[in-house]
Amino acid sequence: MTVFQRYSDDLDTIDQNLINYLKSGDRYLNGSLDYLKTMRGKMLRPLLSLIGAEIAKTQRDLVIATSLEMLHIGTLIHDDVIDESKLRRGKESIQSKYSKEYAIYLGDYLFSSLFVYLSGTGIDKSELVGLAKLMQQICLAEMKQWHHRYNTDQSVREYLRIISGKTAALFSLALGSAAKEPPLKQKLQRIGYHLGMAFQIQDDLLDFEGDEALVGKELQKDLLIGNYNLPILFALEEEPERMRRLLSTQTDLSSEIRQLVMESAAYDRTRQLLNRYFDKIDQAIVSLPGNQGRQDLQELIGVLRSRAY
Amino acid sequence: MTVFQRYSDDLDTIDQNLINYLKSGDRYLNGSLDYLKTMRGKMLRPLLSLIGAEIAKTQRDLVIATSLEMLHIGTLIHDDVIDESKLRRGKESIQSKYSKEYAIYLGDYLFSSLFVYLSGTGIDKSELVGLAKLMQQICLAEMKQWHHRYNTDQSVREYLRIISGKTAALFSLALGSAAKEPPLKQKLQRIGYHLGMAFQIQDDLLDFEGDEALVGKELQKDLLIGNYNLPILFALEEEPERMRRLLSTQTDLSSEIRQLVMESAAYDRTRQLLNRYFDKIDQAIVSLPGNQGRQDLQELIGVLRSRAY
Repeated sequence: MTVFQRYSDDLDTIDQNLINYLKSGDRYLNGSLDYLKTMRGKMLRPLLSLIGAEIAKTQRDLVIATSLEMLHIGTLIHDDVIDESKLRRGKESIQSKYSKEYAIYLGDYLFSSLFVYLSGTGIDKSELVGLAKLMQQICLAEMKQWHHRYNTDQSVREYLRIISGKTAALFSLALGSAAKEPPLKQKLQRIGYHLGMAFQIQDDLLDFEGDEALVGKELQKDLLIGNYNLPILFALEEEPERMRRLLSTQTDLSSEIRQLVMESAAYDRTRQLLNRYFDKIDQAIVSLPGNQGRQDLQELIGVLRSRAY
Repeated sequence: MTVFQRYSDDLDTIDQNLINYLKSGDRYLNGSLDYLKTMRGKMLRPLLSLIGAEIAKTQRDLVIATSLEMLHIGTLIHDDVIDESKLRRGKESIQSKYSKEYAIYLGDYLFSSLFVYLSGTGIDKSELVGLAKLMQQICLAEMKQWHHRYNTDQSVREYLRIISGKTAALFSLALGSAAKEPPLKQKLQRIGYHLGMAFQIQDDLLDFEGDEALVGKELQKDLLIGNYNLPILFALEEEPERMRRLLSTQTDLSSEIRQLVMESAAYDRTRQLLNRYFDKIDQAIVSLPGNQGRQDLQELIGVLRSRAY
């Protein structure tokens, strides 16, 4: 039994609850929600919150888990509008299937529903603020990223700050959400944070070398829309002049850019940074309580570490 | 002194608070917020909530007033993306000045900030749910409207349901928010609701016959994007075949369509419906406590009733 299977009952419930909660009297909306249901992803963020509860020996909180996925899906829907992505999770994206306009409203609907949902539960006001701040942080990071498009002077540090807000903050909140006492909560949050950073850097590498059919979304889109991801930024550090020249004339991931990333230290530095995040996770994980939850987390990290999708 | 002047201190504070609250460490974001500040509108929704407090003799609630404007601005920013509107409040729209992509994220940022802001105040959870539900209702209505584009079979009843969610619900919440006891609260909510309906129908008429320089946004856009507003829907009822033929070949408000709306009963029926909403307001308003707040509301309604912008 894999870790995904061990949590599949709860993940199915979350998936079900989420779509059912969003349904309204509107047939058209309900149709698009049914379609959204067929696009179910790995549900990593809810899974992290469930595993966090196993580690902390607290009750699994399906409300938080559901809201994390709702927030995530809302941001994906808007991201696909911005990137004009046609493919998401191996299927036609909402913006491509239903139009950009509809995708903007559907994302907004998910965000507002998230707060209706949360306020209707027994959730603490502090947890509610936490989730609203998380969404705010994601928006700020997305705005920063958008603002840095085509910026060959963007520093690696600035880029890492952006992916920290875009991805790592959500992973951090997810894994730490179930723990009550500060020391364990903080440990879980840190592990979640590093996992989010690693996850995003892997996405950068997959964008560079992944198999589109496996990954289930269009690849090499980053460069097309001027988002210089980590391999590109490292290549700009290594070979500033050549890289700038290439980027100024080529708008897609040409074989020349690819070659320069591979031949310079850029590719290796990206891999090294990725490994450093995984090493930090490995070091931190051994200090967690030695229970089934920890084993589940270790297994999940193993799966993520070797992911090709 | 006009009603706007009598409330200008609080309206200025709200306008100030709103932008200051949204500012972050990001220079680019702050620049766009400064620009947003120059686009200050009539601030009708906050004003309604302040007048409601005067009528109900309760404390003016600047938190609610600020959040109503934040929500409204967020929806305007996204609406302009959808409609590709270049002009808003007499200035270049956010989507035109900063790109559609940025406008999507800025709207999202306003929505998330709204909930961070609200959760950080002493607001009741029930009021928080109320605002989240309001945003949900607005999204649902916008989705419905989008879905009905180019639908010559859309009924007037369905259209009224849409503008009820898009506009009247927010006016209703605004005017009723400060009242505590149910009978007065409900009265104010009903007046706010009817005022919202009237306001939206006026927008339809202004779209048809307004002066762009005065209104401060592009006119005759509804038809361009397939939104059949009230004069058009009435004309479809009056002259179904001629109107369908015209709409199937003409994508803008041509002189033929204009003529058909004016010559058929469509234009008059729109005006009549508008007057019926104002009559309902006039009838309800006399049963409110006879204080300065009521006079302010009456003055505001007078201004709105004769507005050409």
